[in-house]
Amino acid sequence: MSVTIGGATRLYAIVGDPIAQVRSPAAYADVFARHGIDAVMIPAHVLPDRFDATLRGLMGLGNLDGIVVTVPYKARIVPFATRVGPTAALIGALNALRREPDGSWTGEMFDGAGFVHAMRRRGGALVGRRVALFGAGGAGSAIGCALAGEGVASLAIIDPQRTRADALAARLSGAFPACEIGATTRVPAGRDMIVNASTVGMRAGDGLPGDIGDLAPGTLVGDVVTADAPTALVREATRQRCIVVEGRDMVVGQIDAMLAFFRLAPEPSRAASTAAAH
Amino acid sequence: MSVTIGGATRLYAIVGDPIAQVRSPAAYADVFARHGIDAVMIPAHVLPDRFDATLRGLMGLGNLDGIVVTVPYKARIVPFATRVGPTAALIGALNALRREPDGSWTGEMFDGAGFVHAMRRRGGALVGRRVALFGAGGAGSAIGCALAGEGVASLAIIDPQRTRADALAARLSGAFPACEIGATTRVPAGRDMIVNASTVGMRAGDGLPGDIGDLAPGTLVGDVVTADAPTALVREATRQRCIVVEGRDMVVGQIDAMLAFFRLAPEPSRAASTAAAH
Repeated sequence: MSVTIGGATRLYAIVGDPIAQVRSPAAYADVFARHGIDAVMIPAHVLPDRFDATLRGLMGLGNLDGIVVTVPYKARIVPFATRVGPTAALIGALNALRREPDGSWTGEMFDGAGFVHAMRRRGGALVGRRVALFGAGGAGSAIGCALAGEGVASLAIIDPQRTRADALAARLSGAFPACEIGATTRVPAGRDMIVNASTVGMRAGDGLPGDIGDLAPGTLVGDVVTADAPTALVREATRQRCIVVEGRDMVVGQIDAMLAFFRLAPEPSRAASTAAAH
Repeated sequence: MSVTIGGATRLYAIVGDPIAQVRSPAAYADVFARHGIDAVMIPAHVLPDRFDATLRGLMGLGNLDGIVVTVPYKARIVPFATRVGPTAALIGALNALRREPDGSWTGEMFDGAGFVHAMRRRGGALVGRRVALFGAGGAGSAIGCALAGEGVASLAIIDPQRTRADALAARLSGAFPACEIGATTRVPAGRDMIVNASTVGMRAGDGLPGDIGDLAPGTLVGDVVTADAPTALVREATRQRCIVVEGRDMVVGQIDAMLAFFRLAPEPSRAASTAAAH
């Protein structure tokens, strides 16, 4: 979907490094056009050694109303928020910042809700699932939090930075005592849901995020990576006829909630979004 | 003309305050589409008290390749350039900044060339003209410089900041000794070209930039203001059947030169651009 840009067009920026792979500018162009909103989402390639100065500059633009955040900045951006919503507060990461009328900034994390929404649209039932989750960064934290909130039975968190996996497990265990949550180094036996929330798959030639073994029929597989070609995990899951959610589905799955957060559309009701899935 | 934005789309920003009136985003969308360039020009509303921090932030974006500058920042942005071209050096103002492969920034001023090009397309002959020029800021300096370079006979510069008008007159007199150049407070008798390069006309309800008297047949009139409705000066000049160039014509008139400056198209030859006018 194409957009028309004029001097009065309002700006939203998606901030990340790298940036060429992001899907949000195209997805939001579509949504803005459908809603008749004179706004555009631009890709903003923010370099790690210039993060603070670049963010301050972007947030100083008088016609920039919101920021969407992707890898690797979902945790690093938290101090730029004047206040954060409950999910962002729990996991210490956010992927959306909204400018308030008084010039302050409110942040919240929608990756988890987007992932769950996308999986529900595919018909994947989450209650009671035994989940292996690769990646304890911003997206992994958000998805782990959302899955625990949806009633999965267990969550095994795998991250090369073991302390990061431990910290996320501890935090989610405190918030969701009914879910069996722990950090580990490999996919435990008997998993019926695999989620990659690591960056493995972003680079061409990347393999699987880890040994996933054979996937039982009915296994749910998610991969947050957005890339032109399907990742190795998505290809393998598709070959084994799993229900699959990709990064682009997660982006689309959170658009309604994010539009409401940006005050560009009414709050989606869960009933309505569930109904829309059928 | 609409544009399609993806993660790999390159950014150009037009920087100004206010910003809603600018024409460049739409004009460049058209040109980028015609040339098959995956780029977009975004309006960037930079507030005066955040100018330095916002510019540093924008210039830190890894996917921003160039900046176009409009009111009131054409002089204030000069220190952000690592080096400037000859016109910018002469008048101390610029309206385009290009990122070099080594990360440095080169600036140049194209308003004057754009104005002259637009006037030539309308059939306005400039040699020997007696010009009254309102506004000795960035655009006025650029246009005054370009008109003197085109061989106008005289240039009377009018600006509420008299020292600014005096300084411009002195600088241009040194560079163009054959042209009679001076600062004044009102339009002298016998002018056959009137140019408004002040901000008068940007606000709805603005009148003329000054008393322009009766316009003789064949008078050339230019107004750098870009607004949805014609300015009072443009309306009056149109009523008196003058040859008129507006702000949007000046934007379009400099696009080819600016595309070449941004290394997005080959350098336009003067012969080619003159030929294209017929």
